Amino acid sequence: MPPDTLTQQLAFLREIDALKSVVRQSPLLNRSRKENSAEHSWHLAMYALLLRDYAGAEVNVDRVIKMLLIHDIVEVDVGDTPMHGGSSATVQAELEQVAARRLFGLVPGSHGSELLALWQEFEAAESDDARFAKALDKVQPLIVNVFTDGGTWTESGVELMQVLEQYGPTIQRGSPALWNACEAMTREYFAKCVTNLRGDAR
Amino acid sequence: MPPDTLTQQLAFLREIDALKSVVRQSPLLNRSRKENSAEHSWHLAMYALLLRDYAGAEVNVDRVIKMLLIHDIVEVDVGDTPMHGGSSATVQAELEQVAARRLFGLVPGSHGSELLALWQEFEAAESDDARFAKALDKVQPLIVNVFTDGGTWTESGVELMQVLEQYGPTIQRGSPALWNACEAMTREYFAKCVTNLRGDAR
Repeated sequence: MPPDTLTQQLAFLREIDALKSVVRQSPLLNRSRKENSAEHSWHLAMYALLLRDYAGAEVNVDRVIKMLLIHDIVEVDVGDTPMHGGSSATVQAELEQVAARRLFGLVPGSHGSELLALWQEFEAAESDDARFAKALDKVQPLIVNVFTDGGTWTESGVELMQVLEQYGPTIQRGSPALWNACEAMTREYFAKCVTNLRGDAR
Repeated sequence: MPPDTLTQQLAFLREIDALKSVVRQSPLLNRSRKENSAEHSWHLAMYALLLRDYAGAEVNVDRVIKMLLIHDIVEVDVGDTPMHGGSSATVQAELEQVAARRLFGLVPGSHGSELLALWQEFEAAESDDARFAKALDKVQPLIVNVFTDGGTWTESGVELMQVLEQYGPTIQRGSPALWNACEAMTREYFAKCVTNLRGDAR
């Protein structure tokens, strides 16, 4: 490798340090603060490593892990898009494509085009690897919400049917088995809320 | 997979959420706060992905990435050990072995023993994959220090020769090419410090 190649690679690795300062809507499980997109990416890679046997189709877990490591890097330029926010998905998708070309374009040689292609595969959500990665990207925040008394659902006033609609299809498509478990957890959580509300009303 | 297997796997994934609250000595590059061990693990996995061609021997980058994703999970139980601190390395290593057995023991079936074996391989630092992973675990904080006006070196009053001794052998062993670059960066940083000190003294 020529030395300037290494210089460019190290510059990219410094550039993405900024992902540690992109704050998501989801809290940590201990509720001490909101999660950032770098630690979220680490956690999703661990989800892939642990839950690979539940993918709905045969997946290459090493590719899924790499997709999840890079899936949010565009947020260095465009920030996080809250799931329960009202921003235009089309505009956001276009901004993310521009960000992906700029950021992965900083990586010299074939590595840069490989990363861009992997990110675009994730975004397209058509391959089995991408479908499973997309599913995990919804499973993790769902679990955070269930285990933090509703988390972003409570904050945004989201109800059971909206959760089933917003998380269900993506998780089901990548992992029917995980959706079974997530749907049960979600229904149980909202049933408990209703019981608590009735208790408060008495 | 029986449902209780999934329950245990999800419990492990919730347990390691705590790694996001383990604070390291190194700052973020923007110096807004200290880095935590979860986002550090993400960043190291990205280092492996980008810098794989500089490994001193042929490595399996997918295994290196997995090692780096799990290398700090023991800190959920034992916290971070500062490089420039004075704690006993032997005691710390024993505590980490106990933590590894407890934490990876939460993962049912062969996945748990695979993770424990991978972590122990990293700690032993004998295989080519582990040597490269260990090297990257020193390259990243070195670069952070160079690009944050000395970072933990300044805080701990560490000088050039100590840096060369504390980082050099591990990086050199896993990647002579990266050590060449890191040594040059480090020498340049300390030379600049000396020049600045002379300027201040005038």
